[in-house]
Amino acid sequence: MPREVRDINPVRWMAGEVLLIDQTRLPHELLTVNYWNVENLAGAIESMVVRGAPAIGIAAAFGVALSAFKNQAGTDTPILGDIERLRRTRPTAVNLFWALDRMEMILKECVKVSGKARFERLLSEAQAILKEDIAMCQAIGRHGAQWINRGDTVLTHCNAGALATGGWGTALGIIRSAWAEDKDFSVYATETRPRQQGARLTAWELQYSHIPVTLIPDTACGALMKAGKIQRVIVGSDRIAANGDVANKIGTYQLAVLAKHHDIPLIVAAPSSTIDARCPHGSQIPIEYRSELEVLQIGKERITAEGVPALNPAFDVTPAEYVTAIVTEKGVFQYPYKF
Amino acid sequence: MPREVRDINPVRWMAGEVLLIDQTRLPHELLTVNYWNVENLAGAIESMVVRGAPAIGIAAAFGVALSAFKNQAGTDTPILGDIERLRRTRPTAVNLFWALDRMEMILKECVKVSGKARFERLLSEAQAILKEDIAMCQAIGRHGAQWINRGDTVLTHCNAGALATGGWGTALGIIRSAWAEDKDFSVYATETRPRQQGARLTAWELQYSHIPVTLIPDTACGALMKAGKIQRVIVGSDRIAANGDVANKIGTYQLAVLAKHHDIPLIVAAPSSTIDARCPHGSQIPIEYRSELEVLQIGKERITAEGVPALNPAFDVTPAEYVTAIVTEKGVFQYPYKF
Repeated sequence: MPREVRDINPVRWMAGEVLLIDQTRLPHELLTVNYWNVENLAGAIESMVVRGAPAIGIAAAFGVALSAFKNQAGTDTPILGDIERLRRTRPTAVNLFWALDRMEMILKECVKVSGKARFERLLSEAQAILKEDIAMCQAIGRHGAQWINRGDTVLTHCNAGALATGGWGTALGIIRSAWAEDKDFSVYATETRPRQQGARLTAWELQYSHIPVTLIPDTACGALMKAGKIQRVIVGSDRIAANGDVANKIGTYQLAVLAKHHDIPLIVAAPSSTIDARCPHGSQIPIEYRSELEVLQIGKERITAEGVPALNPAFDVTPAEYVTAIVTEKGVFQYPYKF
Repeated sequence: MPREVRDINPVRWMAGEVLLIDQTRLPHELLTVNYWNVENLAGAIESMVVRGAPAIGIAAAFGVALSAFKNQAGTDTPILGDIERLRRTRPTAVNLFWALDRMEMILKECVKVSGKARFERLLSEAQAILKEDIAMCQAIGRHGAQWINRGDTVLTHCNAGALATGGWGTALGIIRSAWAEDKDFSVYATETRPRQQGARLTAWELQYSHIPVTLIPDTACGALMKAGKIQRVIVGSDRIAANGDVANKIGTYQLAVLAKHHDIPLIVAAPSSTIDARCPHGSQIPIEYRSELEVLQIGKERITAEGVPALNPAFDVTPAEYVTAIVTEKGVFQYPYKF
């Protein structure tokens, strides 16, 4: 019998305002912040009140609707200015540009309509982007739920959850969908150093949805696999090469090696837009090295001696042959990958 | 040409006092605390001012000398009482009991000598325990240094350093000895969540000895191995079974799997007393699960949602066939292990 699973929607529109769950306050507080001007909303994207590529794109789309709401009396000029402002918030988030381009195209179609109609069309487009994203996550969940069996313990890394999308999530979307199918299982969330998204976001998100979750240190994954305590590894992806090589949060590659070594399936969940047809091989995916402060400090406290440097590769690439299945909204793909 | 390498001695005796480096203040401050009564010294062992099994044993031995120093006028009774007090500080540290038994035996030999001579004999025994430990670490270093080549990057996990011993260290003893041989190489110290001994102690200790060290998140080890950036993995051990299975800090096992996968030698450094002849196989080594608060909190701050549980296995066991060599003060052993 299907079970209700509490979803989380990090971005919403309500009565002329954009509402964001403040992800910088999680897991300690669940706060929703209302934004009624575009500049403040842009600042919220910059300061990671909202994060996760799909969620950022949705927030920016609603930002354009907000601009149209406030400029119903005028020309397109201030709205176009706000689009440019939103474009500058996170220079590398592909979904951001995609969503803003889509909104700008609608704006250009609105030349002969009233300011009110222009706003309504833009709001309806932003709502469509949000709905499509949730529907895509739910399709990923539906296709992927077969990979989780009753009694399993599923390990997930980082946060590929509702918080990073319009709702439901990708890796956590599969987990939510399996839970909705009334399967009982439990989840290990890795802490995911250095930024601790597993501890801060995934553990919170699953607990909020009443799915049993246990936090484990990143150092304990291998030993728990060896002890037979992990049956599945399910993660998201930031970019998938045409051959199926998967770029994802640092630590994914070593989980993949460990999973293969212990004969545990590794499932990657991502919308099909993550597959980059122009990138034939994972070796062509550049690895971003982020600030060493993310490793050297936790919060404002330095965890090592002054003067010690750190390495902080943000992502790694897992070769396709380590990936048991890639689940998109279009279905399940298996090695050798032909999308 | 041999190079001077700055050593660290976490436990010393000076003019009727036991001096401990306060390891709870590292890496932010290097403080030496003087103890002139046994109760305070026992409290320091309990609160982990000094940690690492050999270092604890040495501190307790000096505690007995301290007791004899203060009780030169009286009978053995208060000294025996202090030995019992010291015995209660860390119930699982094998070296603690070994060192206290050895001191108690000397005390029993002192029936016909003056209080001053009794103190002098006990102090000299404690000094002997310290010197033997350093000599043992230096022998481990000498035997193990051949495993490090010029230009290597050596990964180490947790702290098997001077701070955990009388000086020089075991895994870090090999690193110090290779550095003393004028080889240029560098070290990656893993953070070692949950207790961060790599960040707090190893990175500090190597920087203090002017050996180039970089902190890396536990999640980055596999990706850095794949990128060819790690040539050796060198770790300590808490207990070695007769077949060569190695119990060590959680995370060692997954490093061993990753090292084998990438064809990188894994060296284990430990005094021969770590080899437990009565334990034929690693499966007989019980794994201590420590408080989940060590995973759930960093300092006093909770890193995940209230109510989320955590797993905190403190150690794991690496099968002997993953270990390229075990280096003790007696020499280098290789698989299949016959000690």
